[in-house]
Amino acid sequence: MTAVAAFSFDKLVILGVGLIGGSLARALRERGDVAGARTVIGVGRSAASMARALELGVVDGTALLADDAALRAALAGADFVLLAAPVAQTQPLLERIAPFLDDTTIVTDAGSTKSDVVAAARAALGARIGQFVPGHPIAGRESSGVDAALPELYAGRNVVLCPLPENGQQAVERVTAMWRATGASVSSMSPEQHDRVLASVSHLPHVLSYALVEQILNSPDAALKFSFAAGGFRDFTRIAASSPEMWRDICVANRAALLDELDDYMAVLTRLRAAIDAADGAALEAVFARSRVARTEWQERGGTKVSVGDASK
Amino acid sequence: MTAVAAFSFDKLVILGVGLIGGSLARALRERGDVAGARTVIGVGRSAASMARALELGVVDGTALLADDAALRAALAGADFVLLAAPVAQTQPLLERIAPFLDDTTIVTDAGSTKSDVVAAARAALGARIGQFVPGHPIAGRESSGVDAALPELYAGRNVVLCPLPENGQQAVERVTAMWRATGASVSSMSPEQHDRVLASVSHLPHVLSYALVEQILNSPDAALKFSFAAGGFRDFTRIAASSPEMWRDICVANRAALLDELDDYMAVLTRLRAAIDAADGAALEAVFARSRVARTEWQERGGTKVSVGDASK
Repeated sequence: MTAVAAFSFDKLVILGVGLIGGSLARALRERGDVAGARTVIGVGRSAASMARALELGVVDGTALLADDAALRAALAGADFVLLAAPVAQTQPLLERIAPFLDDTTIVTDAGSTKSDVVAAARAALGARIGQFVPGHPIAGRESSGVDAALPELYAGRNVVLCPLPENGQQAVERVTAMWRATGASVSSMSPEQHDRVLASVSHLPHVLSYALVEQILNSPDAALKFSFAAGGFRDFTRIAASSPEMWRDICVANRAALLDELDDYMAVLTRLRAAIDAADGAALEAVFARSRVARTEWQERGGTKVSVGDASK
Repeated sequence: MTAVAAFSFDKLVILGVGLIGGSLARALRERGDVAGARTVIGVGRSAASMARALELGVVDGTALLADDAALRAALAGADFVLLAAPVAQTQPLLERIAPFLDDTTIVTDAGSTKSDVVAAARAALGARIGQFVPGHPIAGRESSGVDAALPELYAGRNVVLCPLPENGQQAVERVTAMWRATGASVSSMSPEQHDRVLASVSHLPHVLSYALVEQILNSPDAALKFSFAAGGFRDFTRIAASSPEMWRDICVANRAALLDELDDYMAVLTRLRAAIDAADGAALEAVFARSRVARTEWQERGGTKVSVGDASK
């Protein structure tokens, strides 16, 4: 008895073969249940990084972005194109590939923000916008580059798709099947909802963590403070070692949602400040206890669900 | 050739035999280079917890705090008393033991805040204040209670002493030697400096972490946000699972220093908010890059030192 593979592809083109693009390539080539010719072509700006991806066996072939003929050949007959580059490059990259895209090729992306990506895609693709299914695999590692790519990077992780009104149902289903084949869970929401959720649980914590280190650096006794920083500081600031360029771009790309979350957060801080100033232990304990319950439940449910009960009022 | 032990004691009394007090007892009894009779007596409110400490072999004997005769016997001839209870209990506990203290007994504590502890000790001990050497071992675990006590809890960690003008040099040296015998590094600073440093690198991050979970709980799409929270959120909010009672007490006890740090932090956030609002990527990247360097150096130096260079201006 032979099961039918849940996902099949003949040709996938990856623009930007780093951690994110390389891990998708490795997952689809190395994990079990994928059918088809499974050819993966890497496209990038740098000959060295393309050579490295080829050497590691992450891709079967490469093309330089600046090379018209190579790019045309790479894109000819592709089932899928994954854009896995910083979000600020979305529009120029899509403009670059648009003339070479087959009508049946499905394009998706892996950007951390979605409203700006959708706007960039509409500007770049025009009437072809129905071929573009926006996506965001919520996964990463501290290391970057194709050498850090792992076939298991997406296993058990969430991928959010933000389908457009112009997307055909089949295109969305095909991208869903592609990510499921990596072991990820796939769900969908609007670009605005995605950006609000990620601003809250990812972008804001990064800003807050960077801000704490910045505050200490600005203080007259910075060296002393760092000398006595311990486990709480270590956990809280781990994400302050993240890429400054990437987080700069995310903050700018998602600034509307991020500012809303930042304002809400400062309102909570202002409330806690008043309770501390008034030595109102009961008010502080109520907030701390509620947070602990929610954080502990989140952890116990594998970090993906939490009961909010009437706390969400 | 026999080396002389660097630390020696005959009788140590621990008020509050939980994680902190129990770990000191275990370290001094189980680690190598300590001489003397090494008798440890636990004192507490609850017969059950005293029985458990005895059963685990963490202490040699116990006394209930409410029992005058037992307390007098426990304290008679003690070299050291360690106060290892929530800081809000410092004054009543010291008032309780003061009548039974020998003139030569050295009392120290393990409280997370120091200015309030010093004020409580002055009020409780009066003319005996010279016997009290304030201290803070910067160590802990997520679990609490005597069952969580470890002989290695303090190895490689920092202990801060905040000697008083009334302390004799020998008393400070003896407490220093006691903590060094656990494997800790001991340094000293004023209570005000201690409270400022800890407010910055420990108390503030806890408040910020609790505040983020609180903010999400208050939002209309809390469940959705928790569903898509990933590694950044996990690290940032790990300390939001800490004891609400303990952090309530710390926030109240250290409120002056904590409010200063909180105000400084909100000023940094306001500055970052303006940069995000203006889409000023260069300003954001400069802050993020500086923070990353400092955080990375801190980690690489074992989490205890960092080069601040001209960033401390």
